[in-house]
Amino acid sequence: MNAEIVAVGSELLTPQKIDTNSLFLTDQLNSLGVEVVQKCIVGDDRARLAEAIRSAAARSQVVIVTGGLGPTEDDVTRDAAAAALGRGMQFSQAICDTIAERFRRFNRKMAEINKRQAFVVDGAEVLPNDRGSAPGQWIDADSAIIMLLPGPPKELMAMWELQCLPRLQLKLPPQVIRARFYRIAGMTESDVDQSIAPIYTRYTNPACTILAGPSDIQVHLRARCDTAEEAEALLAEVGSQIEPILGNRLYTCTGESLEECIGAILVERGETVSVAESCTGGRLAERLTQVPGSSGYFVGGFITYSNDAKVKLLGVDAGMLEKQGAVSDLVARAMAVGARDKLGAAYALAVTGVAGPDGGTEQVPVGTVYIGLATPSGVHATHVRLPGDRSRVRTMAAQTALDLLRLHLVGHTRDK
Amino acid sequence: MNAEIVAVGSELLTPQKIDTNSLFLTDQLNSLGVEVVQKCIVGDDRARLAEAIRSAAARSQVVIVTGGLGPTEDDVTRDAAAAALGRGMQFSQAICDTIAERFRRFNRKMAEINKRQAFVVDGAEVLPNDRGSAPGQWIDADSAIIMLLPGPPKELMAMWELQCLPRLQLKLPPQVIRARFYRIAGMTESDVDQSIAPIYTRYTNPACTILAGPSDIQVHLRARCDTAEEAEALLAEVGSQIEPILGNRLYTCTGESLEECIGAILVERGETVSVAESCTGGRLAERLTQVPGSSGYFVGGFITYSNDAKVKLLGVDAGMLEKQGAVSDLVARAMAVGARDKLGAAYALAVTGVAGPDGGTEQVPVGTVYIGLATPSGVHATHVRLPGDRSRVRTMAAQTALDLLRLHLVGHTRDK
Repeated sequence: MNAEIVAVGSELLTPQKIDTNSLFLTDQLNSLGVEVVQKCIVGDDRARLAEAIRSAAARSQVVIVTGGLGPTEDDVTRDAAAAALGRGMQFSQAICDTIAERFRRFNRKMAEINKRQAFVVDGAEVLPNDRGSAPGQWIDADSAIIMLLPGPPKELMAMWELQCLPRLQLKLPPQVIRARFYRIAGMTESDVDQSIAPIYTRYTNPACTILAGPSDIQVHLRARCDTAEEAEALLAEVGSQIEPILGNRLYTCTGESLEECIGAILVERGETVSVAESCTGGRLAERLTQVPGSSGYFVGGFITYSNDAKVKLLGVDAGMLEKQGAVSDLVARAMAVGARDKLGAAYALAVTGVAGPDGGTEQVPVGTVYIGLATPSGVHATHVRLPGDRSRVRTMAAQTALDLLRLHLVGHTRDK
Repeated sequence: MNAEIVAVGSELLTPQKIDTNSLFLTDQLNSLGVEVVQKCIVGDDRARLAEAIRSAAARSQVVIVTGGLGPTEDDVTRDAAAAALGRGMQFSQAICDTIAERFRRFNRKMAEINKRQAFVVDGAEVLPNDRGSAPGQWIDADSAIIMLLPGPPKELMAMWELQCLPRLQLKLPPQVIRARFYRIAGMTESDVDQSIAPIYTRYTNPACTILAGPSDIQVHLRARCDTAEEAEALLAEVGSQIEPILGNRLYTCTGESLEECIGAILVERGETVSVAESCTGGRLAERLTQVPGSSGYFVGGFITYSNDAKVKLLGVDAGMLEKQGAVSDLVARAMAVGARDKLGAAYALAVTGVAGPDGGTEQVPVGTVYIGLATPSGVHATHVRLPGDRSRVRTMAAQTALDLLRLHLVGHTRDK
């Protein structure tokens, strides 16, 4: 069974507003095994909305319309749904009395325009609203179930839970969804796709989605079955083929961020980390400390933006800086060693690079980044040449540094 | 002229993801006098997408399709647009060469699947992408202009500005738009609205929009007139009433970030700044160094997450830490003084607080943040109690610290 969501309201077509109700509804529908296949946002325009409802009902078995049930001229959802289905509407004295009673309870008089809210599409079931004046409607039409729900999130959520969910469950076969949420460092979206497409394209269940996040690639596998056992078996079948291909570039099967994975390892081992940052300017530390409880393993760090700071704070040799340049293998190593020693941490990551837009040279172009890692057993370094603008270089430099630490912690060098 | 936006990608139909590109595009289109009348979100499904493009093009004169231009099987936008218009596609060796060259520049080999990105809808103009591999397409069809743009926001924004905007302007009646872009620190969205609504509601031109950004409030005033003089006169009329109300909480009329404003002042004066961060964990430094050229005035900083690091790196007195607690006025001052002295900067900002979720006490609850500012003429401190979760507290703590420095630099304390 497929669903579509139609969000109604001209304010949702401004540069500021976003339809967030559909996220809640999608989550609810997915957990019933219903896929949301299309969403549409329409202004307060009766003809457009009627067309949107009509075409959604022709494509999908469930259509949820949110908003536009208020009492003003702008609120066209009732009219539009009736028009879309070629049905009439009737005035309901019972609804009118309920609304009037609600106003009385708050010591207010019902305005004349609120009577608009008492019109019901022919054949619809009325869905009571205990959080507001606008009742919803449940229309079991030939091709689709159409729900008209209020726009305010609190009213919508309550009505969904109390009225819609129980009705919808009766229509659905029992079904279970299980998922794996892979995250991968050091590969591009097309690298990931090219390597695993030969596997996932052979299956429609589990469904596979590849996403490029700001600093990594994510792969969602979602299996939909009658029982949890079947769903888990399908995930295991596909997962056991995909995971070896991704190798140790795959850093989680359950969606945690890289800094969360590192944090979990450090907590388990009772070890600590510190950082020394040049071009990332604090982003590496900022990511490590995004994790609640990171004070347990992150002791501190240095932002050594100037050469002088590298010498003063980290004890990098001024002659080496002069000779090698700040963006170099030896300086990255020296920064890491300095950060480790000064703070007595088990590990220290250091990043030095050219984030741009200025500062690049022919030998050391914008995007060049050296990463140092000091550990109890020695010092490592790597370098990369990152594409993109200043912000992207900084983001990927921090990601590359975190991944170097992760690989060291799990005892690997990066798979080729 | 009316526009519709079609966002493509199955990930946009999950409970987590939201189409934010359309907010940028709506803002851009509105500023040209083009109204967005409908938005649609479609998964990676060729037939559905083709229908969505076809029906949008039948209703509106501009159709912008975002996403689905990548190299994978999932990326169906090119195919769907061709199908919607009943046109064919041609392989472009020139595009293929450009993509291959882009890969070469980063020392990587183009994957075979990237060739998919080199197909062009018959009659389309190719829109170069200088931020990614997917070129866009501009299709001037009978009933509508259809643009195919990449999904990643940075690629989309750059392509919009460089390629689409100039082409679209040629299609529109000449009109001049002038804007003021206010940014305000230390006020909530409703505070701002309540204080300036009595003014802006009296005008329809300039249009006024209030936006809550992640760390500040923005007010856009946009005047649309036949001539630049008229537009500037309208802006001056409304601006001269709004600006005094916002007072020194208003930190720019031209949209720069707080860190950019601070950077401009420091550059002008030839002064420098350093930081010492506890609860913000690097975010303050990260913001200061987001600005290109910040190496000219940002010398470096300390992330002193542990008490031990505060003592070792900044010389904070261990007895004071013990007695006052790390989250205290005296420690914030001592951190600032330490960061200033160790790096010889003119100014140093220090932040110490409880970001949560753990670590709060009855005396020092989650959200408590002390900020210290060491200057050539003395040390200042302030404290705030910030609402929200860990991420929000860290964001607003960094913002409050930056604003303290800005107010000091412009010679003010905050207006009440």
